[in-house]
Amino acid sequence: MLKIVVDCFGGDNSPIANIEGALEALKKDDGFIAVLAGDEEIIKKHLANYQYDASRVEFLDAKEVITCEEQPTEAVKKKPDSSLVKGCLALGEDADAFVSTGSTGALLVGCTLKVGRIRGVSRPALLPTLPTLKGGEVVMLDVGANADCKPLNLFHFALMGSVYASEVLGIENPRVALLSNGTEDAKGNELIKQVNYAFRHSPSINFVGNIEARDIISGDCDVVVTDGFTGNVAIKSMEGISGGIFATLKKSISHSLLAKIGALLMKKSLMEVKNTLDYNKKGGAVFIGAKKVVVKAHGSSKASAITASILQAKRACQNNIVDVIKDKIANTPVPPFSAEENA
Amino acid sequence: MLKIVVDCFGGDNSPIANIEGALEALKKDDGFIAVLAGDEEIIKKHLANYQYDASRVEFLDAKEVITCEEQPTEAVKKKPDSSLVKGCLALGEDADAFVSTGSTGALLVGCTLKVGRIRGVSRPALLPTLPTLKGGEVVMLDVGANADCKPLNLFHFALMGSVYASEVLGIENPRVALLSNGTEDAKGNELIKQVNYAFRHSPSINFVGNIEARDIISGDCDVVVTDGFTGNVAIKSMEGISGGIFATLKKSISHSLLAKIGALLMKKSLMEVKNTLDYNKKGGAVFIGAKKVVVKAHGSSKASAITASILQAKRACQNNIVDVIKDKIANTPVPPFSAEENA
Repeated sequence: MLKIVVDCFGGDNSPIANIEGALEALKKDDGFIAVLAGDEEIIKKHLANYQYDASRVEFLDAKEVITCEEQPTEAVKKKPDSSLVKGCLALGEDADAFVSTGSTGALLVGCTLKVGRIRGVSRPALLPTLPTLKGGEVVMLDVGANADCKPLNLFHFALMGSVYASEVLGIENPRVALLSNGTEDAKGNELIKQVNYAFRHSPSINFVGNIEARDIISGDCDVVVTDGFTGNVAIKSMEGISGGIFATLKKSISHSLLAKIGALLMKKSLMEVKNTLDYNKKGGAVFIGAKKVVVKAHGSSKASAITASILQAKRACQNNIVDVIKDKIANTPVPPFSAEENA
Repeated sequence: MLKIVVDCFGGDNSPIANIEGALEALKKDDGFIAVLAGDEEIIKKHLANYQYDASRVEFLDAKEVITCEEQPTEAVKKKPDSSLVKGCLALGEDADAFVSTGSTGALLVGCTLKVGRIRGVSRPALLPTLPTLKGGEVVMLDVGANADCKPLNLFHFALMGSVYASEVLGIENPRVALLSNGTEDAKGNELIKQVNYAFRHSPSINFVGNIEARDIISGDCDVVVTDGFTGNVAIKSMEGISGGIFATLKKSISHSLLAKIGALLMKKSLMEVKNTLDYNKKGGAVFIGAKKVVVKAHGSSKASAITASILQAKRACQNNIVDVIKDKIANTPVPPFSAEENA
């Protein structure tokens, strides 16, 4: 049976939300064993409050916790007994997947050092699933694993994103778009122009052209390819403005009784909007290209988001995402990145 | 008296909104003459519907219009009789400023060819003024003039942004932040790491550190420095999500009578939020570093946004922004961009 390690420490609501999320996932899907990583004593004390199938719960005892404030490389080195490092190490043994709400930086370092990348993949990437305005889903990568990218990295991102969209989200022949500062092929910085040329010359990518950032969640594409610096800025810009809108609205309402009543009547709609755009509901960001399935759930994840992340990891394992990516990378010719190279 | 050329053609609501915006600006500020650029016959026909001080209105007849669909460099070359090109040319003569709702690309090309940059400025940049969640204003540059930037360009952006924030917005000793994928100095791509080093070593910049994209509009800084590719992605991400939220809300409300009533009661608050975050209300984006004041108002600008852009151009002229930038660039030593360079 598949073994999914759940890091019970490191998030804002850990360990309780992480434990509850794991137990809920066990109820929803009977195809895996949950390995709860962290201080076993503390975890067992919390578990006493719940009913669950004990035969599908294992423990990975770890006394240390890596915080988001620590420098990632140092933290991974200095805390071998942390749930995060032990979770990464378990992937080198018989575990199939790891879900963590801990420090993104430390998780990337831990995975890179202890798990490694799929043969042929030039750089693994962080891939979140975002809700679209049409009610569907879109994946974007990289949103932060690689601040500096070469054209080949983005070509691999396109292949891996396409595999994820088709195998895990069930999207047939996913439409790939390249994030740029204009839709025309001639737009973009030097990196993006080269990648655009390559995408136009690769029959393996269902390339629908460049998109502007305002259309990331339009629903007109299934995979958005970008370097890790730009992707990080894009996703955090969206987070910032969306948080800002709801905060401003709340403040404005507080000044008026009528508005307060209005907000009550609109509550369902307001929640619907918040939920529609809340990408944490879709699970975590996958560290795609790593040799095993690794999912980074948001640090502020509640139990439901952790359940979603675990089930997402399960789907990725079940659909052999790692092997499919390995084959895809091995069997796809690398296209030219410029007319000169093509000559 | 100052002469401000107003491009009456090229925006979604042109020429009427542009003409109305200009007349309103004339009413609000008696310190300038408006030169209306575009087909004189058509403009005069519209003007017949308004009362205004004819002694402060001049005309710059131009029969052609450059559209946003045209390739900028070609369009500028092929349409010398367009309001956009003639407006740029007027800046080479006695006009002090140019406000346009036309094609951003064509305006940048036109300015670069016909107006030129301030001596010493390595690259002019597009600078919009954004509203902050604290009720203030923040400027960001570059949001699209330069897709590929060198560290020196961003150093000049910081100086020009600081001058703009202090001279036009009246912010004393503006706080400069560098857009990155994390707040720590070590974060960022290669470009940003070099610029961070330079900002830390320049006493002329009131550097408050790196910021993440979610904090652009937090109100914790006055000038956000970024390259034109990343800045474009950031601003369009914000636009996209903000438009998406209101569209989703509208759709959700349409399904429920209670929610509709709620929305009516909340109307003031909803409008307040929309207005708070609508950066077009703050005027247009300044093409800063050009030899004359050039303001690009949003293509969808209504009369009020055009009025705001004209008054913004007026303030920039009145405060001699071009001369202040020239002096600032000439008198500020360029800091080292790395420890090696500093050794």
